[in-house]
Formats: sequence, C-alpha cells, structure tokens
Amino acid sequence: MNIKNTVYLDGPDALMIVDRRRLPEKVVGVYLTDHIEVARAIEEMMVQGAGDIAITAAYGLYLAARDRENRGYEADMAYLEEAAALLKATRPTGFHLAALVDRILARVRETPERPPSEVILAAVERAVKRQGEISEATGREAASLVKDGDTILTHCFAGAGLLHLFAEAARGGKTLKALCTETRPYLQGARLTAWSLSEMGVETTLITDNMAAWFMARREVQAVFTAADRIALDGSAANKIGTLQLAVCANHFGIPFYILGYGGPDRHTPRGTDIPIEERPAAEVLTFQDAPITGPLVKARYPAFDVTPPGLITAVVTMRGVFPPEAMATFHEGRQGSL
Amino acid sequence: MNIKNTVYLDGPDALMIVDRRRLPEKVVGVYLTDHIEVARAIEEMMVQGAGDIAITAAYGLYLAARDRENRGYEADMAYLEEAAALLKATRPTGFHLAALVDRILARVRETPERPPSEVILAAVERAVKRQGEISEATGREAASLVKDGDTILTHCFAGAGLLHLFAEAARGGKTLKALCTETRPYLQGARLTAWSLSEMGVETTLITDNMAAWFMARREVQAVFTAADRIALDGSAANKIGTLQLAVCANHFGIPFYILGYGGPDRHTPRGTDIPIEERPAAEVLTFQDAPITGPLVKARYPAFDVTPPGLITAVVTMRGVFPPEAMATFHEGRQGSL
Repeated sequence: MNIKNTVYLDGPDALMIVDRRRLPEKVVGVYLTDHIEVARAIEEMMVQGAGDIAITAAYGLYLAARDRENRGYEADMAYLEEAAALLKATRPTGFHLAALVDRILARVRETPERPPSEVILAAVERAVKRQGEISEATGREAASLVKDGDTILTHCFAGAGLLHLFAEAARGGKTLKALCTETRPYLQGARLTAWSLSEMGVETTLITDNMAAWFMARREVQAVFTAADRIALDGSAANKIGTLQLAVCANHFGIPFYILGYGGPDRHTPRGTDIPIEERPAAEVLTFQDAPITGPLVKARYPAFDVTPPGLITAVVTMRGVFPPEAMATFHEGRQGSL
Repeated sequence: MNIKNTVYLDGPDALMIVDRRRLPEKVVGVYLTDHIEVARAIEEMMVQGAGDIAITAAYGLYLAARDRENRGYEADMAYLEEAAALLKATRPTGFHLAALVDRILARVRETPERPPSEVILAAVERAVKRQGEISEATGREAASLVKDGDTILTHCFAGAGLLHLFAEAARGGKTLKALCTETRPYLQGARLTAWSLSEMGVETTLITDNMAAWFMARREVQAVFTAADRIALDGSAANKIGTLQLAVCANHFGIPFYILGYGGPDRHTPRGTDIPIEERPAAEVLTFQDAPITGPLVKARYPAFDVTPPGLITAVVTMRGVFPPEAMATFHEGRQGSL
C-alpha cells in the first residue's frame, strides 16, 4: 500500500479510490460508479493533490461516457459537457483539473468516429504516464538544489515530485532529512507526506504548522519545498493554506523557498490576484474528527489556499529546469533558459 | 461556567481543577489531594496559561503543607522544599510558577511562628487577587492601542488581560473582532480563547494556525496580541510555539505585534537565549485524541514554546504602561517612562 495507487479503475464501470482523509490509520476504499459520485468525492477531499484530483476527475468523465454512450453524437457530447462542468466546479483554485478535463473533451470532439469512453480512457492513461514523467523530471531538477545532510521542510503533500526529489538525492549520494508540517485541518502533511517519506526510508519528523519558524530560526531547516495548485504568469503561486507564511518566514531567516512547479504556470492566469481562492465550510475548522473543539458562538473561516507572491519565491522547479519566478511569464514560449 | 473559576479549593484538603484539554465540549473536574497529583496535572497540561499554572502550583504547595504539618519546623520545611522542587520542575519555560513558589516559600521561612499552610493559603489568595489587578491594568493599557472596528489576531490563551482588553475597549465604545488561531496541538486558542471571547459577546472567528499570514496579507488583521510565558531583560519573549511566526509575518505585513507582558520581564533572565525551551513528548504531535495521524516510522518534535526577538515586537503591554521591548532592561528599576 502506498499513495501511488489510490485511484484506479475497478472493472470497466467503476472507480476505486482510497479515502486519503483516513490514511494511514485506515485504508478505506470508496467505490464510485458515476461522475456525480466522483465529483462529490473530490469536493469532500477524499482525493488530495492537484495531479491526482485531475486524474480522478478525468476518470469521472470516463464514467459519464460509459454511462450514456451511443445515444447519438450530440446527446453524448451534451451529457459529457454537463459532466465536465460538474467536475470542474468541485475545486476552483487548482488549474490542473479543469485543464485536463477540457483537453480530454477537446480530444473527444476531434475524434467523433471513436466511442468517447475509449478516447477518454486512452487520454487518462496518457495523462497518468505523462504526470509520472513530469514528476520524475521535476524531482531530478529539485535534487540539484540540495546537498548531503540537508533537512527539507515541506507542507501538505507536494506530489510525487517531492518523493522523487528524495529518491534522486539518495541515488546521488545525498542523504536528506524531512521535516513535515501536519497541515491542518486535513493533516495531509502527516497522513500522506510524512508517511510516504518515512516508508521510503527517509528520516522524517512531523511538526505542527505553527512550529516551522522556530526550526528555521534554529537553522534546523536548509530549504523549503512545496507544490503549487496554480502558478500565475507573474510568478505567484497558489498552494495549500499555510504556504505563504512558510515563504514569509523562509525569507526572513534567509532560507531558500522553492516551488515544485512541475509542468509550469497556467497560461490563462496572468496574475496571482486572478486565482480564485476556494473557501471551504467552517465546520471543517470547528470540529476535529466530528467533535467540536470550541464553543457554539464561534465562527470559523477556511480559505483552502493562499497565494505566495514571486518576491518570496527563490525559484520554481519544473520538469524543464529551475527558473526564477519572473521567468514564468514566458515559460510556455520556451524562450528563457533555466537557472 | 467560564475559565476564570477552573482552579479552586474544594474543602481544606483538596484542589478541584477543570481539565482544560477537554473544554468546552466537556467540563471534566479533576480532584487533586496532594502536591504530587498537582504536579502531574500541570505537567499533563490540564491547567494552561502561565498565571493559572503558577496559582495551581502554589495550591499544590498548600496541599503539601496540609499533608505534613507540625512535625517540627525543620521537617516541615524540608518536606515543603521537596514539594516546591517537584512543582517547579513541571514546566521549565515560564517563570511565574517558580517565582511564585519561591516567593511563598520565602514568606513561610520569614514567619516560622505561623503554620505554613496558613501562610501559604494567604499568599495564594493575595497572588490571585494581585493577578486579577495586573490583568485588569494590562487590559486597560492594551485597549489604548486599538481602534473601533479592529480585528485582533491572538494565539493560544493570552490570559485574563486579553479578555480585559476586549471588555475595556467595548466600554470605551470600540467594538473589536477576534481572530483566534486554534493553537495545535492542544487547541487552547479554540478551547479557551475563542470560546471565552465568544461567550463575552465578541465576534470571534477561529482559524487554523497556518492561516494567519493570509489574513494579514488581505488586511483582515489590524493588530496581534499574545502573552509571554517569560520576557527576558533584552526584550525577547518566550511564548507558546507559533508566536514567533506570527511576529515574523506581522513584521512582514506591517501589522503591530504586541506582547501582553503583565507584571513585566523576569529580572533573573538577561537574554532570550537564556530561556529553557520545554520539549514535550512526540506522542502529543503524532496522535490526535489518541488516534495516530501518521505512519509508525515517523518521528515528531514538540518544542512547546519559541522565543520572539525584541526586533519583532512593537511593544510590551504591562500593568504599568506600554513599553518598547528595549525598556525591559530597566523595567524593574522603574526608571523609564511608558510609551
């Protein structure tokens, strides 16, 4: 059991996902049979991490295609577009989900002669493969930024690229340690990141989110790496709430702060201020494992992401190399060299 | 039920405390009959907040005196000194506990003609009254620093002075809102602060510890107030872990960061680096309500406090006025004027 195989087809008409909110204590498989169930699972954060959310949504589109196929091209497409809209509305901050769903839908339109479900499944499988390659290349680039003995602070689950960073560094003879924030309220840092890294043999230490600055002040952290749910062309990075304060603190203490940027910025988002920030239900902050942690008159806020401005980002690590955040503007034009 | 009466004598030979780790969901009274039980309750964080910890420890000394009295002066004193050492060893970072226990023990020595328990009880009652006056004066001074409509960010439970700040501001026609960090791992911000403020009628919003910078960046916070378990003469302040990163972020975003300093610095601690930082058991981070939140190979660290340097502190608010942190050096000489 590891977090790499928590989303997979179980036969031609069902998707099996592992509820990440319960890991690693309990491995709870959730069996989803249509795109509405898939959308709900994404919304309720059974799946976490921008890449996996995108893949899960794409499988949801596949289930929609399987569900209503061969009613005529127009009817099939209308149903798929409705399903796509529902899936895209689940989590607005990250761009991978909408980008992948749109790309697959375009592919379906380009090949009207083939059954949509077949086109979608092939596209999802290509996307999974491509994500793997991007993660591996990103991890390799990131490994060039660290040195033997470094302790890497990370927040939430920064995707497979983070695991590749540790694996690649180890192959290069560099032993890294990991310091993981637990990442409230869903504890992805504890449940996914710390668990995965420790199972890979990395010396892994869990801290609460409020401890990061103290470890920086004591020079017990040499670099910070987080992912981004969306990078704007101005070099701003939206990521799990809490990323901004790590960047501010890293900056204050003179510690490099890197964004694992995988495939680069969203070409349709000019500025960080253009990124919609998902606000989740207050109940997710007011309770822990269903027990209230405060009084009945207390309100709560839960912005699920924050935006770190380019001035606080040392570099963005992508599959194509390491770039200053300012280079995001022309990343997709492929004109600038990597750092 | 409020947090002001969670520690009290129940008859002459027992102390009743309310387990703060369970509030506000459950009001669990814990009945303590000797100083060893009191020490354990402090160590296990059933009592929280520097002032209340000190008072509880002093009651522990009283129970020790009740337990073994009239065996002769030397024997009584030896037993009391042993009890004092045990109580002082429970929480090393704050100085109020040791200072109060030492002061009371000195008072017992000065009046050998009176039964120690009587001397101690009178001293504890004076300390409770004096703490109340100091809190009220500190809250009054703090209220002079805020304006109508401000949202005050606070961390952990900053003591009665924080409640007085809101009450005093309200009396002066200033309506404040509160933004409370939950304060992992024990959630004092949720369980004590947010609850108390909301019950006072303050519009109170709970956030997780990692959200603070984002609210600052969006200008949804006008000032930060925290307490300090110990202020050094160089103006450094040790307080609940997480305080440092709030100070760094407040500084970055140009938001004033105030320490509620009550009675002032510890005259026996020259520098912030002289403050011992209590490291608590890893299990308190690796589990939540007894359920593990990560894998078995993951380690954890739990420094319970951090130290904020004077350069990040806008001012220290005491019963005697508002001072720049540099003024802590001569605070007890009473020479410098307040801000």
